[in-house]
This record gives sequence, structure tokens and C-alpha cells, in this order.
Amino acid sequence: MIHLEYPAWVDQVATIGAVYATDADKMRLAIAVARRNVDEGTGGPFGAAIFESATGRLVSVGMNSVVRGNNCTLHGEMVAFMMAQQRLGSFTLAAPGMPAHELATSCEPCAMCLGAVLWSGVKRMLCGAARDDASRLNFDEGPVFPESYAYLEARGIAIVHNVLRDEAREVLERYRANKGAIYNA
Amino acid sequence: MIHLEYPAWVDQVATIGAVYATDADKMRLAIAVARRNVDEGTGGPFGAAIFESATGRLVSVGMNSVVRGNNCTLHGEMVAFMMAQQRLGSFTLAAPGMPAHELATSCEPCAMCLGAVLWSGVKRMLCGAARDDASRLNFDEGPVFPESYAYLEARGIAIVHNVLRDEAREVLERYRANKGAIYNA
Repeated sequence: MIHLEYPAWVDQVATIGAVYATDADKMRLAIAVARRNVDEGTGGPFGAAIFESATGRLVSVGMNSVVRGNNCTLHGEMVAFMMAQQRLGSFTLAAPGMPAHELATSCEPCAMCLGAVLWSGVKRMLCGAARDDASRLNFDEGPVFPESYAYLEARGIAIVHNVLRDEAREVLERYRANKGAIYNA
Repeated sequence: MIHLEYPAWVDQVATIGAVYATDADKMRLAIAVARRNVDEGTGGPFGAAIFESATGRLVSVGMNSVVRGNNCTLHGEMVAFMMAQQRLGSFTLAAPGMPAHELATSCEPCAMCLGAVLWSGVKRMLCGAARDDASRLNFDEGPVFPESYAYLEARGIAIVHNVLRDEAREVLERYRANKGAIYNA
């Protein structure tokens, strides 16, 4: 049996249903989730959030929960997908009749999460920090190649890189300064 | 909150702690899990299992649970990783003091699951059916390239393809004959 709950601080950072109008607003939330996760010691320095594209309404957030959950799959993006799909009662965010959804992630996804982006049903992805920013902390990002992004784009997923990259990177540096665990070095 | 339990039939197919000595024994179990998942209508035609390498003792199984769980991440391999890590109380199957672990999966992993193989801590992977066998059913496998496998091998993960491939493929065909849902076409 698998069981995962959000850390208690989530409601202080994010309000489900609130409107995050711009790409910067959306990314600022993903980064805030990552930062709080570091400061509270509840996981790695990665946060994510899912929004309705047309309205900017927040559907879910996700924070790295690998160590807390004893579960290697619980990266920030994965938690955001799981929680959004749970809330909507659907294994895809692109079910008939649903509005389009998009993901903001505080760092370019690892190979696992990039694959999950495809299965999640989101139509757009905003990335904050770059793969290299995570690699500098010795986080391995896995087998992600330029062709991997092209594969998603060919299936209709729009991808925007380097959204508030400096702010996103600052959280990674904060984690390093705190000597946080590198669970997949 | 995320919550997942095995379907009720699992104990009839797999005995945690039992010994599966050979690669064929291990794959036969992964295929049996996939077949039962199809026959019971509890998910897609994919099964997986994790073993201690030295002893062949079964640690966990996983079956595709995407539709049942309203969760796009619950592929067979992912469920197997989650359940094994839950059981062992560790986010990695390669923690200090642990024996080496290996995965048997009834079909070559999609991009998400291949990434997760890297994070899971398994040291060896047995694959049954091939990517093309799944693609013929219109299951998309995502951005997996020869370089993706090479990336894992360079990090010390041994990979064996085409273990009981015909038996594994037969489950995919059975799913097609039953007109099972293709949830990530």
C-alpha cells in the first residue's frame, strides 16, 4: 500500500483554485514550493505546480518527497501530476471536456519526469533552473537528450526554458549550503 | 493524499519472499502478473517484479494501475519500485548494507520507467516484450533511444532484452483482443 500526504506547510504557500496569471507568477509559486521544502527539511530543492492554462487557476503543487516518502519516484513533478489527477479523478489532464493544463517546474525535469510529462496530459511546460544547475549539485538528471524535448514538442507540448532561472537556481544553492542529501548522485 | 493498494488477486500469483531462481522464473512471474491484470480488468498488460539478485527472493511485484489509480505514473515498474521501497523503508534499493536487487519487466520500459530504473537502485534489468511489441498496440513508449540504455549501462546497470519475449508478447495480444484501453496512445 502506498500513501502520500502533503507536508503541513503547503497551505501556507499555495492556494488551490487561486489564479496565477503570468508565466512568472506560475514559476514563482513552483520556486516558493521548492524553497519551503528545503527550509522545512521535507525534501529536495525541487517544486512544481499545475494550472489550467486558460484561467491560470492552480490545480495542484508538488514538492520533492523522495526521502520523506521512502520512494524514488516522488520528484516534485510526479507529486504534482499525482495530486492533480487524484483531485480531478482522471489519469490524464487531457480527458475529453477538460480545459488544457500546464506545468511549471523549478528545474528542468529528469528523464523519469520528462517521460511523465508526456503521460500526464499537460500541454505546456515552464522550466526554471537548467539541467546544468542541478548537475552542479551532483543531482543526476538521467538520459535526457535534445531529442527527448523534440519528442514531446512533436506531440504538441509547448516547452519554455529559463523562466526566472536565477531565482530557481538560488534554491539549489541554498540546498547545497544546507548540505542537503543528494539522493540520486 | 495519494493511496494505492494491490488488487486482491496478487497473493494468488506471487509470494513475497519466495525464491525465483532463474531469469526465466523471474520473467515468468512478471508476465503472470501482467496476464492476471488483463484477465481481472485491473489495468494494462504490463507486469514487473523485483528480486534480491543473489538469492532470487521476491521483494515486490507491480502491475499497471494507471486507470484503476487515476494516476498516469502507475506503470508496472513504478508500482514495483514503490512497493519494494515501502517494504524496505528506503528510497533506494542500493542503500548501504542492502543486497543487490534486480527488476524483471514484462515489456521494455517507457521513458518514465527507464528513468526510474536509474533512481530505484536496481543493478540489473530483465525485459520481456520489446518496445515494438507495445507500439503495435499503439502504446507510446516515449523518448527512449539507444543512448538511454547506454546511459544506464554506463552507471553499472546490466540489461538483458528478449527474455521469454514470445510469452510476454502474448499478453499484449490478449489485451488487444479484449479491446483494453490504450491510455497513452
